[in-house]
Amino acid sequence: MTGPVVGIVGGGQLARMLAEAATPLGIHVRVLAAPSDEGASEVVPDVVVADPDDSDALRAFARSVDVVTFDHENVDHDLLRELEGDGVVLRPSVATLEHSDKAHQRRRFSAAGIPVPDFLVLPGGSDVDADAAAAFAARHRDSGATSGDVVVKASRGGYDGRGVWILGEEQLRQFVDSWSGAPLVIEPLLRLRSELAVLVARRPSGEVVTWPVLETIQVDGMCNEVLLPAPIGEALRARAHAIGVQVAEEVEACGVVAVELFVVGAEADGAEQILVNEIAPRVHNSGHLTIEANATSQFEQHLRAILDWPLGPTDGASAAAMANVVGNGSDEPRSRQAEALAAVPGAHLHLYGKSPRAERKVGHVTVLAADVAAARRGAALVADVLAGGGTPIEEAATSTEGRS
Amino acid sequence: MTGPVVGIVGGGQLARMLAEAATPLGIHVRVLAAPSDEGASEVVPDVVVADPDDSDALRAFARSVDVVTFDHENVDHDLLRELEGDGVVLRPSVATLEHSDKAHQRRRFSAAGIPVPDFLVLPGGSDVDADAAAAFAARHRDSGATSGDVVVKASRGGYDGRGVWILGEEQLRQFVDSWSGAPLVIEPLLRLRSELAVLVARRPSGEVVTWPVLETIQVDGMCNEVLLPAPIGEALRARAHAIGVQVAEEVEACGVVAVELFVVGAEADGAEQILVNEIAPRVHNSGHLTIEANATSQFEQHLRAILDWPLGPTDGASAAAMANVVGNGSDEPRSRQAEALAAVPGAHLHLYGKSPRAERKVGHVTVLAADVAAARRGAALVADVLAGGGTPIEEAATSTEGRS
Repeated sequence: MTGPVVGIVGGGQLARMLAEAATPLGIHVRVLAAPSDEGASEVVPDVVVADPDDSDALRAFARSVDVVTFDHENVDHDLLRELEGDGVVLRPSVATLEHSDKAHQRRRFSAAGIPVPDFLVLPGGSDVDADAAAAFAARHRDSGATSGDVVVKASRGGYDGRGVWILGEEQLRQFVDSWSGAPLVIEPLLRLRSELAVLVARRPSGEVVTWPVLETIQVDGMCNEVLLPAPIGEALRARAHAIGVQVAEEVEACGVVAVELFVVGAEADGAEQILVNEIAPRVHNSGHLTIEANATSQFEQHLRAILDWPLGPTDGASAAAMANVVGNGSDEPRSRQAEALAAVPGAHLHLYGKSPRAERKVGHVTVLAADVAAARRGAALVADVLAGGGTPIEEAATSTEGRS
Repeated sequence: MTGPVVGIVGGGQLARMLAEAATPLGIHVRVLAAPSDEGASEVVPDVVVADPDDSDALRAFARSVDVVTFDHENVDHDLLRELEGDGVVLRPSVATLEHSDKAHQRRRFSAAGIPVPDFLVLPGGSDVDADAAAAFAARHRDSGATSGDVVVKASRGGYDGRGVWILGEEQLRQFVDSWSGAPLVIEPLLRLRSELAVLVARRPSGEVVTWPVLETIQVDGMCNEVLLPAPIGEALRARAHAIGVQVAEEVEACGVVAVELFVVGAEADGAEQILVNEIAPRVHNSGHLTIEANATSQFEQHLRAILDWPLGPTDGASAAAMANVVGNGSDEPRSRQAEALAAVPGAHLHLYGKSPRAERKVGHVTVLAADVAAARRGAALVADVLAGGGTPIEEAATSTEGRS
């Protein structure tokens, strides 16, 4: 084969959409998919099926490609370090991937002057200091700036709201006393004005680009909707971009980094503050709408960045919305496309080929429209139809040249 | 697997780009690729390798999918008719595919009142009537509306300028006397103002949509560039759409039909006339820019149409241009992506994974810009770089939010 070979560790929907972006660029993709992975294997011809913890398999895979990148971060970092030592090109690097550890991320960002919520890291295992946790909670309760509850996060292994607990002071002590897992990060439960995401791409030679700032809407800790543009003033927008670039430089990103942000403080523009909630050193759910809404998608940009190719422009549509299609445990979205497209003929469907287990992201929908509210209504409607919750509606009229 | 299975006969770049459009829609694609086909096999996991003239293989393939569609028309129509008789769903149908025979197409369109150039069909084999051909040429020479030369086309088997000859009266007689192939279509060599294409999609339940009219630029009979929008007045634009719809109805299209048009006559708007040059009952090179420039691409629309799903809006960008990347016999475009993207970072590359034999389309480039001239310059530059003819230039600045 001719042209670069990109190896992707993990075979979920992120690998699938990276492969979709690779095809027109003439980039060959090889995927290391766990036997249980769904998403990429259905549409990628070159799949190696092995558990990413199988060190021999990962070693052989990494050595068979030009550059290794990741669908998820659940890979043994010691093994990755060994591969890096052997000359395998990991993009992002292990040093960047280590920021997926929430305790490490908080400490590094705090030390670098990147704004983060106040936090306390408790060592894991059976020696967790419940008194320190209680004192942290009490101090924040008394400050009045928060609800009094705290957010407790396992430093590793969580995603989509898993590994995160919101606890009152009493529950906190019990929880900490019974904990014996990874280190914990404790933070005040902040009163949020909104949540934002800024996507950033950085290539090894140093070029950095950001995309227009997005608003993210979470439900039960899981990203549910993403809106473009975020409804914020210019000062906050500039601040979000600056923080995004600072984060990308701090973690020495290679490829896309998604930076999730909290907006807190008084409502008046200028009095609001941005704090970094967390980052993902890879393509991310918040950036799925870039496929249609931006001049260069996060998936194409990630590939260009990790190959150290020139990055593309990120100009965005005037308004767009993305809604996730979440499995409800029984319905199969791949039998509902016609119904979904009848609801909104201009909707962009993305089905991941995953069996629709409950609370599992099985697809997403992006709608571009004249304003965010219309885009959001359209995306939510179509996602609902695909998830099996929709009621049949009449085919909507759409603006189209020459429809007859 | 869940969801519909679309079988594509032929494994070239059209199959490849249909597969790219199928993935996000959750449509499973199976390709019947000849051993020599390049393009789709590299990126589609479910490929059956067999010659499409292998009737047993085609039968088994057709029966294994929900609907059969085509990357090219070079399939035995008798066999296809037999499959249709057995209940295989061919979209387009054999009756539609028969319009790829240029003699059949001209006769049908002429009888239906669709404007076509004056033409003469000569039976093939060794009984070709050279006197009739000479008389046709002489009549048109004397009319003054043409150059005096004629265009001779083999009714079947031609593409990209192959099977088409431009001949003077003397050459015509010699050519016809020595011809022993398929029936010939003879037409006057018209003085063209420009060439247009209008893409149309039609689904079995009758819905028809057209895309904004395109201008096509041919070099040596092969489509080389496509521009959006076509530089024509409103009257001509409306006429092109109307002819497109009429053609789609006349051939009972299912899926996309590309209708290539000649603009002839006096320059003043209103005095110009449109004639149908030829049609292709499938996705077509003239529609490649719809991937980025229109709300629904020809590839997605073709899939939606053949599955009888609601069709999508076709609204177009304000200006776009596509340029083909043509093999020059030695250079490999899959080693030049970085150079190409440095020239125009916002260019959309499409490399087909085909070895770059001379005069072979191995990819295309689409550029969106504020005006057609800028888009055309950009697309042509990038296509030239990919074809190996470019000289290194400095990385162009582009408008992008937050580039740093």
